[in-house]
Amino acid sequence: MKKAVILLSGGLDSATTLAMAKNEGFNIYALSLRYGQRHNNEIEAAKRVALTFNVSDHKIAEIDLRLFGGSALTDSIDVPKSRTDSEISEGIPVTYVPARNTIFLSFALAYAEVIGSSDIFIGVNALDYSGYPDCRPEYIESFEKMANLATKVGIEGKQTLAIHTPLIQMTKGEIIKKGISLGVDYSMTWSCYDPADYDPVGGEWSCGDCDACVLRLKGFAEAGLEDPLTYAEKVVL
Amino acid sequence: MKKAVILLSGGLDSATTLAMAKNEGFNIYALSLRYGQRHNNEIEAAKRVALTFNVSDHKIAEIDLRLFGGSALTDSIDVPKSRTDSEISEGIPVTYVPARNTIFLSFALAYAEVIGSSDIFIGVNALDYSGYPDCRPEYIESFEKMANLATKVGIEGKQTLAIHTPLIQMTKGEIIKKGISLGVDYSMTWSCYDPADYDPVGGEWSCGDCDACVLRLKGFAEAGLEDPLTYAEKVVL
Repeated sequence: MKKAVILLSGGLDSATTLAMAKNEGFNIYALSLRYGQRHNNEIEAAKRVALTFNVSDHKIAEIDLRLFGGSALTDSIDVPKSRTDSEISEGIPVTYVPARNTIFLSFALAYAEVIGSSDIFIGVNALDYSGYPDCRPEYIESFEKMANLATKVGIEGKQTLAIHTPLIQMTKGEIIKKGISLGVDYSMTWSCYDPADYDPVGGEWSCGDCDACVLRLKGFAEAGLEDPLTYAEKVVL
Repeated sequence: MKKAVILLSGGLDSATTLAMAKNEGFNIYALSLRYGQRHNNEIEAAKRVALTFNVSDHKIAEIDLRLFGGSALTDSIDVPKSRTDSEISEGIPVTYVPARNTIFLSFALAYAEVIGSSDIFIGVNALDYSGYPDCRPEYIESFEKMANLATKVGIEGKQTLAIHTPLIQMTKGEIIKKGISLGVDYSMTWSCYDPADYDPVGGEWSCGDCDACVLRLKGFAEAGLEDPLTYAEKVVL
C-alpha cells in the first residue's frame, strides 16, 4: 500500500481529506503543526480524528509562528466577527498567517521524503475559502513543481511527488456530505478561531461568528445537516 | 533603506552573504533556525556574526527536524569522514536534511511578509556544494515563483519577491576572498558537522575531515589564506 502524508489541522476540511485519502487506499501518515495558534483545540481534534481513522502514524511538529506574528491567530490582533460569507471572500483577512501553508507543506515534504512517500494531501479549498493566497490552485501547482526540485526525486530527475487537494473545487456543503459518506464524525473536528469558555463541564464552545464558524455553519446548512458542535451563538446568514 | 531577510546559519557562506547584502545597502533582518542539529555551535556563531554586523534584528526559530530524522545531522547516522571533494560531489550524502532549505526559506518568507520585505538572501552554492538538491539554481528559481504566489503580493498580482543567492556561482575560495574584503571575521563562523571536544579551555575544535571541514579548508587553501579556526586534524586534499 502506498503511503500518503496528510496535513491534519483538526478542522473539517482536513478530516474529510484524510478520509478521502484512506478511501483511495493510502496508508495514512498524519502531520499536525502546533504553530502558536491561540488555542489547543485544533491539535486535540487532530488527535481524535487520527485515532478514529487508525492512521499508521501521527506526528505533531512544534513550531512557533508568534516569533513573527502578523496574524490574528498568532498575534494580539482581534479575530473579526459576524462577517457574511461575501465579506469573508473579499481581500485577505487578519486571520491569514503569513506563509503558513508553505511552512506546513514544507514540513509535509520533509516527512514524505523520510518515509518514502510521494503523495501529500492538504485540504485547501478555493471556493468557500477565506481569501488566503496560499489556498489557490496556482499556488499549489507551483509548490508541487518546487517540491520536485527540492528533494532527492529532483536530483534523480523523477517528477513524481504530488500535492493532492481533493477539496479544492468543492463547496463546504459538498465537503461535509462527502465526509459523512466516508464515516467522518464531525463532532470530533474543530474549526472556531476564538472559542468561548462557556461549557460547564470544562470544554469549550465554538464562538459561532468568526469566519471559520460562519463558513462551517454555512456548509452544514447547505448540506441540510445539523453541526454536532456546541456554539455560543449561531450567526444566521 | 530596504529590508532584507538573511538566512544565517553561522557558517562562512551565510556570513559572507550577510556582508554582501549589507554592502548592497539593505537593512539586515537575520534569521537562524535551531532545527535539532547535533550541536549548538552554529547558532552561537550566527549570534556573533549578527552582533558584529549590527543587524536590525536577529530571530532564532526553534523547530525540531529530529521528529522526522533521515539525516546524519538529525538522526543517529554517522557523519562521513575523509572524503575528497570529488567524492563529496558525487550523489546525495547522508548529511542531507530532507527539505531543510525549503523549510528555512518558508520561515524566511513568513518573516519577510510580516516586516514588509521583498528580498530574501540565502548562501547556497552550486559549485563547491555537497550534492544537496536544494542548493541548485533551478530549485531556487522555482521557490521564488512559488513564494510570489504564496503571499499577499501574489494576490495583488505583484511579482516582486526575490530570493537572492549571491554565492551560487562562486567557489569557496572566491567566497572567502569576497568576505574578507567586506570585513567578515571568519574566526566567528562555524562549519564543522562533527566538532571534537578537545579544547582545554572549554571550547570545541572543528574535526577537520567531515565534508563541511574539507570544503572549508579547500576554500581557504584556494584563497591562499589560513583558516582562523582550530582543527583536531586537517585533511590534506
